[in-house]
Amino acid sequence: MFTLPEGADEQQFLHGLADNMRTADALQSPFGDKLKVGRLGMLGPLYWEPDNSLDLEYHIRHSALPKPGRFRELFALVSRLHGTLLDRNRPLWEMHLIEGLQDRQFAVYSKFHHAAIDGVRSIHLTQSMYSPDPDERIHHSPLSMAARDRYVEALHLTPPSEEELRNVTDMIKATLDSSAHLLSGVRQYAGAWMGRGGPLVVPWKDVPRSSINTKVDGARRFVAQSWPFARIRAVGKALDGTFNDAVLAMSAGALRTFLINHGELPARSLKSMVPVSLRRPGDIDSSNAVGAISADLATNIKDPVKRFRAIKASMEAGKAMLQDMSSNEAALFMQLIQLPGLLLIPLGLGSRFPPYSTVISNVPGPRQPMYWNGARLEGIYPASIVTEGIALNITLVTYDTQVDFGIMACRRTLPQVQRFIDYLEDSLVELEQAAGISVPGARRPAKAKAKASTKSKAKAKVKAKAKAKAKAKVKPKLTTKTKMKTKTTAKAKTKAKTKAKTKAKTKARPK
Amino acid sequence: MFTLPEGADEQQFLHGLADNMRTADALQSPFGDKLKVGRLGMLGPLYWEPDNSLDLEYHIRHSALPKPGRFRELFALVSRLHGTLLDRNRPLWEMHLIEGLQDRQFAVYSKFHHAAIDGVRSIHLTQSMYSPDPDERIHHSPLSMAARDRYVEALHLTPPSEEELRNVTDMIKATLDSSAHLLSGVRQYAGAWMGRGGPLVVPWKDVPRSSINTKVDGARRFVAQSWPFARIRAVGKALDGTFNDAVLAMSAGALRTFLINHGELPARSLKSMVPVSLRRPGDIDSSNAVGAISADLATNIKDPVKRFRAIKASMEAGKAMLQDMSSNEAALFMQLIQLPGLLLIPLGLGSRFPPYSTVISNVPGPRQPMYWNGARLEGIYPASIVTEGIALNITLVTYDTQVDFGIMACRRTLPQVQRFIDYLEDSLVELEQAAGISVPGARRPAKAKAKASTKSKAKAKVKAKAKAKAKAKVKPKLTTKTKMKTKTTAKAKTKAKTKAKTKAKTKARPK
Repeated sequence: MFTLPEGADEQQFLHGLADNMRTADALQSPFGDKLKVGRLGMLGPLYWEPDNSLDLEYHIRHSALPKPGRFRELFALVSRLHGTLLDRNRPLWEMHLIEGLQDRQFAVYSKFHHAAIDGVRSIHLTQSMYSPDPDERIHHSPLSMAARDRYVEALHLTPPSEEELRNVTDMIKATLDSSAHLLSGVRQYAGAWMGRGGPLVVPWKDVPRSSINTKVDGARRFVAQSWPFARIRAVGKALDGTFNDAVLAMSAGALRTFLINHGELPARSLKSMVPVSLRRPGDIDSSNAVGAISADLATNIKDPVKRFRAIKASMEAGKAMLQDMSSNEAALFMQLIQLPGLLLIPLGLGSRFPPYSTVISNVPGPRQPMYWNGARLEGIYPASIVTEGIALNITLVTYDTQVDFGIMACRRTLPQVQRFIDYLEDSLVELEQAAGISVPGARRPAKAKAKASTKSKAKAKVKAKAKAKAKAKVKPKLTTKTKMKTKTTAKAKTKAKTKAKTKAKTKARPK
Repeated sequence: MFTLPEGADEQQFLHGLADNMRTADALQSPFGDKLKVGRLGMLGPLYWEPDNSLDLEYHIRHSALPKPGRFRELFALVSRLHGTLLDRNRPLWEMHLIEGLQDRQFAVYSKFHHAAIDGVRSIHLTQSMYSPDPDERIHHSPLSMAARDRYVEALHLTPPSEEELRNVTDMIKATLDSSAHLLSGVRQYAGAWMGRGGPLVVPWKDVPRSSINTKVDGARRFVAQSWPFARIRAVGKALDGTFNDAVLAMSAGALRTFLINHGELPARSLKSMVPVSLRRPGDIDSSNAVGAISADLATNIKDPVKRFRAIKASMEAGKAMLQDMSSNEAALFMQLIQLPGLLLIPLGLGSRFPPYSTVISNVPGPRQPMYWNGARLEGIYPASIVTEGIALNITLVTYDTQVDFGIMACRRTLPQVQRFIDYLEDSLVELEQAAGISVPGARRPAKAKAKASTKSKAKAKVKAKAKAKAKAKVKPKLTTKTKMKTKTTAKAKTKAKTKAKTKAKTKARPK
């Protein structure tokens, strides 16, 4: 999300950005490369090769929101764009400049295939596209080799060597000497499977069944929201854990509320895949360098402090195991623990035996305001992937003083995922209260029961209205307060229509 | 394309249409049904079954054009929407209400899988959605059974019997008694393959290689334009042929210019598949009832009158063969002649041995102005399919006093398909002149040589500008004149940018 520079004409500015992106002598990888499948098909080795008829008009697109251009319309468009397949005959990316938002804002939706770019690489790309200086104008394409070189220089790094450029695939291919660390990791891991792992959680073991873990189809629902970094970090500090522990606890509380309200909280706690970077410092080019820790989300524990502690213990056990390994060993280890999945998915059993309940991914972004040719970057909302058996993905990016959450869900499995935004706020407030932190202006959490929730929601609505009146001139941004404002305004306007619509919906969805 | 009723608010009106479409007790087939694949997969029998979690918000969508909302932006959006796959887990259709056009216009883009709805069925649906009365307001969903029943009643038809509802698939399954007509058809057809067919053209035989006949990928380019019905029919009459002969001759001339300008006119003439309806009168429900004639497009003949006569002769030979058959026989015959394709496509040879060079399809639409709750229907532009080996599809709908052409092309194979609109106009003028018809205001055809064409285009531009000034207040519609106007305005505005853009494009497309 961006705000246009003062005085800039939206149409002219966006066309300028698009023209600018299309102007490059040489593109950095993988923007000009397409995937080549060998004679063995997708089971054999894959190669990247230059696309000789590259068509940048195809990859860089203009889109617009229907009126009134609220976040609701933006989420609908992003959900839709996220539900289409990338064309395998072309480089595996698309970038949409989206106009028609309110308050001189515009949005950029970028879509990369995970085979081409992972979360951390995408943040490096984001950083290289933008500048901390509002007056800087960048004239070469952010997709160009020139932009990459300039970014590497600004990082004060020596450019990575050929050897460092090897990605995970290359590492696996390389001969790996057996090592005590790897062996002890495997031994520990096997122990956890046998029930002797202590707080160490392993994939597939004891993952409960829930509505999140089911077959997914192609359509998506996306919602996004920002929270202040300081609020979440304060919870982590007060409870003697990390920022990431606090993010997991906040998400776990929201998941618990969601499952209780759907009347299906499993007796066993949900497990989350928590990706960790295996990237060496200075490596900004690898397309994939991701490992994973299994975190116990302790959704079966009512007390928020006890829940936080259980999460923290499982994260520490997971990290301890990986920390002893070199990044090569860790990458091999990751491949080994994925083996059961490689067997289950072709058998069509991926959705019946998911390795995790969900994915919660924390991607570090730039910690200062950034600008794109003068347009202020207001937020970086990650739109990640749902996979067979895992219909929900929570990814967040730390940007400037905020934490930007993007929640991606299977449209059919989780039709009410927009409520998750409220549950996350409720969960954070619950943690703040348990940790003895008082935050002025934070709303009281709704009780995690279907009936009670309806009542407290009604109260929250009244409160939100009052707040919206008081802060009517605040520039909308996807923060909790302003989002509530936007929703409230929308509700007030469409009040008259609500009844008729509800009727129509009920008929249309006989489920 | 529609024009909003006077005084209507765009946002309110479009939301009203969407809400109205979503309100239905029972949907007519196939809007509520999804495809079920049996245990044999796509090779075995397929069934339609109700989608129990039908989500009409997914199927009926709001979209918007980026500014300035010209036809160029509309074509870009439609090309993009046409390049995505329909979700096989849901009913195989999407409908987009598109806002942000100029002059109080809006557009509706409908996408149906051909397995669900063919061209004629889609026109029946179009007609049943709209009314010839600008004051009529329809309160039930046009997708509902209620709308279908009302439409059948208005047609003064007895509802089709169970027997009449059988579609092509059912017909093939049914036992067919052998008949003299069918045998003579097969005998005639075999003769044509042996070179004894006279003007009868058969698929796969003598189809030349050209840039149109190649592998296609997933992305599309779409352009559209209207011509007056009277102009095209006058050519047919003057040259002693049908309206359809004139459409084919007009398209053949445009194809000839296109191929000459690309320096690759084949010595053999191009062949076109011309779909013909096998639908019995009163059958408005069959999803597919299409046969095909192979037409010789005579693109190797320079003289427009001789070209017209060759086209007419091949169409008459094709029709004569089908006319002798019952519709059941014709359907079986169509299945028989498709056999070579069923063998070639799985071998990956579909693009090397195409059965036709292109498809030119003439779909009869309503011959009076139609309204959707007061919004005038300005044109029905068909967006059809390109298939492996056939990268270009020309489909047209006769509506009111106009003929609405929609041209769909593979984006990679035919990047300059927008020029086709000019070539069609040139070809029509050439035919008019050859037939001794003078049409005031029609532009002179550009010569069919790359260099000459650039010059005459420059002239045409100057003329168009003068015209645009004179007719500055005409409401834009996709007719030849106004389209030129729109293009000219856009050109004038972006003149300053043109150089920079051309540079960027040249770099981006190294081909």
